[in-house]
Amino acid sequence: MLVVMRHGATTDEVRLVVATIEEMGYEARPMPGRQRTTVGLVGNDGHVEGSRIAALPGVAELIHVTKPYKQVSREWRSEPTVVRLAGGITIGGPEVAIMAGPCSVESESQVLEAARAVRAAGATILRGGAFKPRSSPYAFHGLGIEALRYLSEARDRTGLPTITEVMEPNQVDIVAEYADILQIGTRNMQNYSLLNAVGRVARPVMLKRGFGATVEEFLMAAEYIVAAGNPNVILCERGIRTFETYTRNTMDLAAVPVLHMLTHLPVIVDPSHATGKRWLVRPLALGGVAVGADGVMVEVHPDPDSALSDSEQQLDLAAFAALMRDLLPVHEHVRHLHDNVEAGASGVAAPGNGDGLSRH
Amino acid sequence: MLVVMRHGATTDEVRLVVATIEEMGYEARPMPGRQRTTVGLVGNDGHVEGSRIAALPGVAELIHVTKPYKQVSREWRSEPTVVRLAGGITIGGPEVAIMAGPCSVESESQVLEAARAVRAAGATILRGGAFKPRSSPYAFHGLGIEALRYLSEARDRTGLPTITEVMEPNQVDIVAEYADILQIGTRNMQNYSLLNAVGRVARPVMLKRGFGATVEEFLMAAEYIVAAGNPNVILCERGIRTFETYTRNTMDLAAVPVLHMLTHLPVIVDPSHATGKRWLVRPLALGGVAVGADGVMVEVHPDPDSALSDSEQQLDLAAFAALMRDLLPVHEHVRHLHDNVEAGASGVAAPGNGDGLSRH
Amino acid sequence: MLVVMRHGATTDEVRLVVATIEEMGYEARPMPGRQRTTVGLVGNDGHVEGSRIAALPGVAELIHVTKPYKQVSREWRSEPTVVRLAGGITIGGPEVAIMAGPCSVESESQVLEAARAVRAAGATILRGGAFKPRSSPYAFHGLGIEALRYLSEARDRTGLPTITEVMEPNQVDIVAEYADILQIGTRNMQNYSLLNAVGRVARPVMLKRGFGATVEEFLMAAEYIVAAGNPNVILCERGIRTFETYTRNTMDLAAVPVLHMLTHLPVIVDPSHATGKRWLVRPLALGGVAVGADGVMVEVHPDPDSALSDSEQQLDLAAFAALMRDLLPVHEHVRHLHDNVEAGASGVAAPGNGDGLSRH
Amino acid sequence: MLVVMRHGATTDEVRLVVATIEEMGYEARPMPGRQRTTVGLVGNDGHVEGSRIAALPGVAELIHVTKPYKQVSREWRSEPTVVRLAGGITIGGPEVAIMAGPCSVESESQVLEAARAVRAAGATILRGGAFKPRSSPYAFHGLGIEALRYLSEARDRTGLPTITEVMEPNQVDIVAEYADILQIGTRNMQNYSLLNAVGRVARPVMLKRGFGATVEEFLMAAEYIVAAGNPNVILCERGIRTFETYTRNTMDLAAVPVLHMLTHLPVIVDPSHATGKRWLVRPLALGGVAVGADGVMVEVHPDPDSALSDSEQQLDLAAFAALMRDLLPVHEHVRHLHDNVEAGASGVAAPGNGDGLSRH
Repeated sequence: MLVVMRHGATTDEVRLVVATIEEMGYEARPMPGRQRTTVGLVGNDGHVEGSRIAALPGVAELIHVTKPYKQVSREWRSEPTVVRLAGGITIGGPEVAIMAGPCSVESESQVLEAARAVRAAGATILRGGAFKPRSSPYAFHGLGIEALRYLSEARDRTGLPTITEVMEPNQVDIVAEYADILQIGTRNMQNYSLLNAVGRVARPVMLKRGFGATVEEFLMAAEYIVAAGNPNVILCERGIRTFETYTRNTMDLAAVPVLHMLTHLPVIVDPSHATGKRWLVRPLALGGVAVGADGVMVEVHPDPDSALSDSEQQLDLAAFAALMRDLLPVHEHVRHLHDNVEAGASGVAAPGNGDGLSRH
Repeated sequence: MLVVMRHGATTDEVRLVVATIEEMGYEARPMPGRQRTTVGLVGNDGHVEGSRIAALPGVAELIHVTKPYKQVSREWRSEPTVVRLAGGITIGGPEVAIMAGPCSVESESQVLEAARAVRAAGATILRGGAFKPRSSPYAFHGLGIEALRYLSEARDRTGLPTITEVMEPNQVDIVAEYADILQIGTRNMQNYSLLNAVGRVARPVMLKRGFGATVEEFLMAAEYIVAAGNPNVILCERGIRTFETYTRNTMDLAAVPVLHMLTHLPVIVDPSHATGKRWLVRPLALGGVAVGADGVMVEVHPDPDSALSDSEQQLDLAAFAALMRDLLPVHEHVRHLHDNVEAGASGVAAPGNGDGLSRH
Repeated sequence: MLVVMRHGATTDEVRLVVATIEEMGYEARPMPGRQRTTVGLVGNDGHVEGSRIAALPGVAELIHVTKPYKQVSREWRSEPTVVRLAGGITIGGPEVAIMAGPCSVESESQVLEAARAVRAAGATILRGGAFKPRSSPYAFHGLGIEALRYLSEARDRTGLPTITEVMEPNQVDIVAEYADILQIGTRNMQNYSLLNAVGRVARPVMLKRGFGATVEEFLMAAEYIVAAGNPNVILCERGIRTFETYTRNTMDLAAVPVLHMLTHLPVIVDPSHATGKRWLVRPLALGGVAVGADGVMVEVHPDPDSALSDSEQQLDLAAFAALMRDLLPVHEHVRHLHDNVEAGASGVAAPGNGDGLSRH
Repeated sequence: MLVVMRHGATTDEVRLVVATIEEMGYEARPMPGRQRTTVGLVGNDGHVEGSRIAALPGVAELIHVTKPYKQVSREWRSEPTVVRLAGGITIGGPEVAIMAGPCSVESESQVLEAARAVRAAGATILRGGAFKPRSSPYAFHGLGIEALRYLSEARDRTGLPTITEVMEPNQVDIVAEYADILQIGTRNMQNYSLLNAVGRVARPVMLKRGFGATVEEFLMAAEYIVAAGNPNVILCERGIRTFETYTRNTMDLAAVPVLHMLTHLPVIVDPSHATGKRWLVRPLALGGVAVGADGVMVEVHPDPDSALSDSEQQLDLAAFAALMRDLLPVHEHVRHLHDNVEAGASGVAAPGNGDGLSRH
């Protein structure tokens, strides 16, 4: 539930709303705005009887959030969340975020070579796996903390913020120390202990969609992170599991505009994992940008054929540079189109912000 | 199997190859080319022992087609098939094909109004359902032959070639008389009697992917039509059935470049049926063009809310015009990118034409 | 909608109800019962305003059928449909129906040998494919009418009623002349022309679930056949398409009790096509009987390894006999359990007959 | 790879094999048998060059395990694993294991009442959730350690061993202190940190199949636990996610015989979570036993309608007792049938133990 205060409501009036919410057994999240302050009520798993709050001085109206997710919904916050990183890099703003780098960090030189090349080609963020989830217990599981150091070193030398996966609650602090964005992998999308843990650190988190998860479950998982205190969540569509076996997964590009309608969080696409095939990265990256994604994650390796993991899907440095030469102008060309949609110029109103709102 | 003749092979040599193939119990398809003639061997459901043919005069080499589909494969024909319609309209050429019109033809005035409006906005082909497959036996099943006449009238007045669905073998001749392209719907993708029937008429056929069909099964179904004698087949990706229920189906945009690699047939996308939601047509149409589709099919109705079928997913005329204003420049912008891929300029070689070829 | 007449309503009162329904533009289906007559109203694709009918003399109450399927629903008819064949064979009664025989009819001797052996082992119905739907146009498509004659001959010699697939409307009459049950294959479940055609003949029809179809769509397809006039429809669960590739399809055994709750039609399982693996036929046949299936269809071939189609999944004669030795006693053992469920002795009320009923 | 020693090989010969394997960088697992000792080699993610080992004294032969999972495969160990609990309860032996109890432990009296009732009805193991994974961060997440104490108390009073879910590595020790079996939930099937953690305690682990996981991935996850040192793993089929929405998931009963062929681990079915509907628990439990499951997990609550979680799918005590009255005799009736299969009496050889073996 959202408690919208009157324009000009006093600090004491806001405080009384907060106190009343807490007295009722819920948590209150005051959100000051330009025009007026809103106080969010969380902790409920269903309807809250709001008449007591509605009667408080300074309260303009109550808005019941009808979705099972609350704080990540467009109902809760209509403005898009822009995640801000060092060096002025943003995700969810007007620039397209390009996360590129090797599947696994394999050596200091490998990651540094990749970082320099992807940066030169136009990437804005360096990706690289330190802890690798692998289906076999006997496979290469990443270099761990050593890899975190190499990534950090590559950032210092190139200025690219970094993103890397974290696999268990105990790793969260050390990964947060070295990396700029913490990634939650597809297999851990509903690992609630991990979601809670990354919700308590001061680093943005990129949450990958579970390959068997619906859009609603994806948003519920994001809600865990935000509910634990971390508002800087980035969503990543990386393909879902279907009967089609030609590609590793089926990239659900419709999920991008659907998510943009349902949530204020930025949405990234990962064509490397979605397709599992190097030569499909390019068309699907273009497709992702065309449907309005805020960024693209691409696996790039200086020598893909010798890669220790996912060698089939990593681009080499030249192919990544070629992709960037085409993708950045396409983004430039299409990005105003999605602004038009939001402004209603397309002639088709998305249900958008108002969908599912019931005013008390 | 493909029998490639030497440059300068004589007509008699080609005839001997044909006769030998037929003597072996198969069918022969001579395909004269600029440089040299190729003779396709069909009718086999597995390996053919080719030494007898290889020994014939004028034979340069034998190419075993390794896919279960033959004549639709890129191995069989490397050049893209361009389907040509009256008025110079093409599908599979440099222009993007825009098929637009109402889900069902409901009246003469409705289809004519829609035809004029979509033509003015940039559509190149008029769609409209005369025979409607509906999940309920008690629902509206289309106006039938009356609708065919209205469609034909609208074509005469606007110059737009028409496409409409055919549902059973007995309807094929009458539909072919009135319409320019015959459509096979998703539920009939493996209706082999119908595939054979449309394979025997002199009209292009648009085959929609079964919502439960793999890419390979899709191509096998197209092979039925081509094997029956009709080379003008257009493929249409319209979403597959997955566990995600937010959209009606999950649009498999990766299938577009995959199909372009595996077959020489043109590929269209249908975001209206894939998503089932009006406001998702626009981003997915843009996405389809960005991944390289040769065209887009869009349901457009002068008054969607009063439509007799699929009212949730049809655009009104203004929204379609707005979509065209954005989509055509995006196509203009991206189409050279896909040419680059074929030319190898992307730095990533698609397995393409050579994939799966084994030379004898 | 169902119009329930009062006990003792006169023939004239029933006639007036029928006439009124027809005057309103719908079709009427009078169904005399032991206690009282019911008149079904079909032809509507939504709510019917019934006040005019409710006011007629002799009308006790109106029951609105809330499911999109009408005549196949348990609301429409609470008693199970028992399909009766020559020789006293039933499907949907207390005996388990065992349909066995080769995938394709390959020769007179092959089908006769199979018929004698499966009969000796306990089969009650002979299956065999005359017209075969195959994914490749170049594969063996069945012996056609010749096969129908062999099947018919085998029936005459063994007394086993026969079942065979029909693939197009034009074949319906000839197949109905030779076979006792017409089968609609999984790929044709939504071939509405074919459903209408088999709805007009006086032969029972076995409808296989589309591998991509939901339970509701399955029932809608059955409704087409019943709506066209044929009440003797048998449903067959044969696996659905999922991401699991170990088996050819995923057998949805929960669909058996679900269908028994939603419809009065008998339900058969086909473990041969569901699994695609010979050694899985046995456990899944047992599982099918245990969840309450009214019968099992099994592919049996005198020499599976030489079969012209589906050789991987056909049992040889000895294996089928072994399966019958185990399956029949299991059916004997479990069948009363499902009676208990219907009688409420299980302590868990299935929503059953009453689910979705709204009384006017 | 498995190194099979000659009958009568000396301890020193075995030691030399172990030492050689370790010198080559792998781990060795000596497994003494009645006839002869086998030494497993793990730690490889691909082919191992074995000529050096083959040449050692006492080595009879090398067996390459061709599956990606090793120690859980039937190739590695042909005898079924029987998990033994206090009080002589077994899982994987001739008795069917019945795990029953409430979804969530809600109070001391609730769990005790449920324990006494399910025990009286025939259950052999008490289930109850202490830590609950919920899709909403605001939902009831279980009583935690308090619930563990109640469960433990109920075990002391009824003698039933207990099973409860563990959600994160940090909880493993405390849960292992109180419970007899640790359960890994479907969402955590690929939470590798958790799999490693439960692999290091001396408690059996029941691993639920991920709702989006293939059979092979399921076995790979089990391999993690065994590879970490815990051989007592029980597999649980609980439904997979498909397009069918009538049931919550689609129960994949074919997975039971498939798993029995591929692995020596016991296999349990969970019809409560698979179907999500109370009235479907009974037929699917019978079906599970009929396909050969080693046990059934059923959610039972003294008052399902007031349950704090999953109220739709829990049986009440009377319904559970009725289920047991029917299920136990069915198990008695069918269990010898599956023995027959293993003994080859069914006339259909499952690929079984030998499938995928290549002898060096």
